Amino acid sequence: MTINEKNYAYGASKSSIREIAAYGAARKAQIGAENVFDFSLGNPSIPSPDAVRESIERSLQLPPTQLHSYTPAAGLPFVREKLAASLCRRYGENTAAAGDLYLTCGAAASLSISFHAVVNPGDEVIVIAPYFPEYRVWIETAGATCVEVMADPETFQIDTEAVRAAVTPRTKAVVINSPNNPVGSVYSAQNLAALADVLHEREDALGTAIYLVADEPYREISYGVEVPWVPAIYDRTLVCYSYSKSLSLPGERIGWVLVPPTNPDHDRLVPAIAGAGRSLGFVCAPALFQRVIADCCDVPSDVDAYARNREALTRGLSELGYHYIEPQGAFYLWVKALEPDANAFFERAKSLELLPVPSDSFGCTGWVRIGYCVSYETIVNSMPAWKKLAESYK
Amino acid sequence: MTINEKNYAYGASKSSIREIAAYGAARKAQIGAENVFDFSLGNPSIPSPDAVRESIERSLQLPPTQLHSYTPAAGLPFVREKLAASLCRRYGENTAAAGDLYLTCGAAASLSISFHAVVNPGDEVIVIAPYFPEYRVWIETAGATCVEVMADPETFQIDTEAVRAAVTPRTKAVVINSPNNPVGSVYSAQNLAALADVLHEREDALGTAIYLVADEPYREISYGVEVPWVPAIYDRTLVCYSYSKSLSLPGERIGWVLVPPTNPDHDRLVPAIAGAGRSLGFVCAPALFQRVIADCCDVPSDVDAYARNREALTRGLSELGYHYIEPQGAFYLWVKALEPDANAFFERAKSLELLPVPSDSFGCTGWVRIGYCVSYETIVNSMPAWKKLAESYK
Repeated sequence: MTINEKNYAYGASKSSIREIAAYGAARKAQIGAENVFDFSLGNPSIPSPDAVRESIERSLQLPPTQLHSYTPAAGLPFVREKLAASLCRRYGENTAAAGDLYLTCGAAASLSISFHAVVNPGDEVIVIAPYFPEYRVWIETAGATCVEVMADPETFQIDTEAVRAAVTPRTKAVVINSPNNPVGSVYSAQNLAALADVLHEREDALGTAIYLVADEPYREISYGVEVPWVPAIYDRTLVCYSYSKSLSLPGERIGWVLVPPTNPDHDRLVPAIAGAGRSLGFVCAPALFQRVIADCCDVPSDVDAYARNREALTRGLSELGYHYIEPQGAFYLWVKALEPDANAFFERAKSLELLPVPSDSFGCTGWVRIGYCVSYETIVNSMPAWKKLAESYK
Repeated sequence: MTINEKNYAYGASKSSIREIAAYGAARKAQIGAENVFDFSLGNPSIPSPDAVRESIERSLQLPPTQLHSYTPAAGLPFVREKLAASLCRRYGENTAAAGDLYLTCGAAASLSISFHAVVNPGDEVIVIAPYFPEYRVWIETAGATCVEVMADPETFQIDTEAVRAAVTPRTKAVVINSPNNPVGSVYSAQNLAALADVLHEREDALGTAIYLVADEPYREISYGVEVPWVPAIYDRTLVCYSYSKSLSLPGERIGWVLVPPTNPDHDRLVPAIAGAGRSLGFVCAPALFQRVIADCCDVPSDVDAYARNREALTRGLSELGYHYIEPQGAFYLWVKALEPDANAFFERAKSLELLPVPSDSFGCTGWVRIGYCVSYETIVNSMPAWKKLAESYK
């Protein structure tokens, strides 16, 4: 074995989502962009708010040596102060102090760093399926085993009894993602409280500590439902955040990990997060965009365009008789395939130039994900194809 | 063991360089900035060229969804095309194609990713001491053992016979850094050719493959000496580059790994690099700064200010009788301590408000590193203190 075979495999295997997107791009070139309905990617379609450009322009007035220099590993102190103050305004006093925040190169870094901070080789980390497939990659790279627990098959809320059954003495963490990719569900306060009860009960019974890793890039994108603040419900929480979706900045890689002051292991987790960032090769989050998020952390996300798409998509598919989970957040619709095999359903959709993502990519059978972070026209114009698809099963 | 103790320790222990810099900042607040001569950090003191600001301003004219969106994991294709063309102009045809470059969040990411791409648990990676101390952290995090081989104690070129003696069947890579931090030396073509001979001889004798990881953030900062292109001398090379020093952008985290087309394992290394980036949580290099380096990769580094500092510092210390290694590149001067214990020498320097870094931080005894990426005035005004320090040993 000359090189690292595991990382070779991670690089040589393509993400099935990216493969569908690549097919979509090629097909558009072939038959015209307006004839292909590509719902595969989660790339925000609304532009960053003007405040982002204005913030960058303001920063360019600073001396370059100040603007572009190394920052402390956890981020510029004034930036962390501003973010912490914003969190306290939203979720209550004592939600966060500057020293509780560690700025990262986006949510992927936040999650990878969090896993490396808490797990030891042989530990287990529970994910709620369907789930973002990269979770498994980061969990396994941190040396732990990824344990899938299916969400409730009706509501796609967390099946807390299934979580209880999956916890072992080696369970170090549970990852939740709400608003959820791929389902679009938001876990209710009641559901999270039931999860907290289960985890506390298991911690007490097993004499272990179980961390809840809350992956929240879609927190600002919800449709009239409350997205509960997880650390207020469960004490051993780490919050992983990113501005990829809220400010439409996915390419700039900027986010954070919060170790809430109420986490009983706070004083050991803060250095463990910093140490994990250091050991993986993250030196600091990109300096210019640290300043951008300080300026823009209270700028409301423009969810109107997504809300309009959601409305058109759910109304249209409803009328055609499709069954889907009512989307409460994010920009994904989770639609029941019209046959048990989601891949076969996908192939038939594809033959009609419709490109959702089959649920097998997310660790679950029988559904597809429609990413509606596309143009409104794409949704409206896709309806005849969705109609044909439904009719083909009659 | 609740959390990851190794990463806790990496976060809880302070870098001795950062500790000296923190002391310097506190001391300046106490007695006035002009009275403290802080030579501890490697933060570039010359501003980024105007072309950087101009490039950012130009990019801000693009639609934000295009500018800030996810890029392919390896970077934007047109950016990699431009960087590859620039490398071919400098180092000859067939130096690099776009597909050989993987853009990263800076040199730390380049190195961490390279180690994770090639090593397996139990492997050994050789570093040439004195060396940048984070190498050990990244090598150990990738699961390998860090093996120190002292440079030639007179010239601080690579002691190739010592490397030969250190190679074992588990040696997976050798890291070199030229222009060198902390010494300021540049490895000659002759020295690198001798290293290549040793590594090839050992590969043949042991039936193994040994990678040369060339860490080159200081490539553009040299003083009238040629910095040889390593892949032209040794085939199994990976080049790790960053724009932190050449464009004074250390906080923006932008660099690359090159798998040269002449590397015999090229076709397996390219996916292994991508897979390592993926598995560690790097999604793509910051998008805006990908465009900046495409625009600025041929902008010459402004080394004049460093050259002037170098001249003043070496002339001044020469006259005072200090022994140092003639600096050929980077912005560090490697000065012999006036007593065997570099830490004791540092403490005496500190009492005179001089703050170099003792060599023990770099895996070597008896020297100090003076970072001369400071203002010219700091160098000139420090001379009386260096004089007092020398006199105190007479």
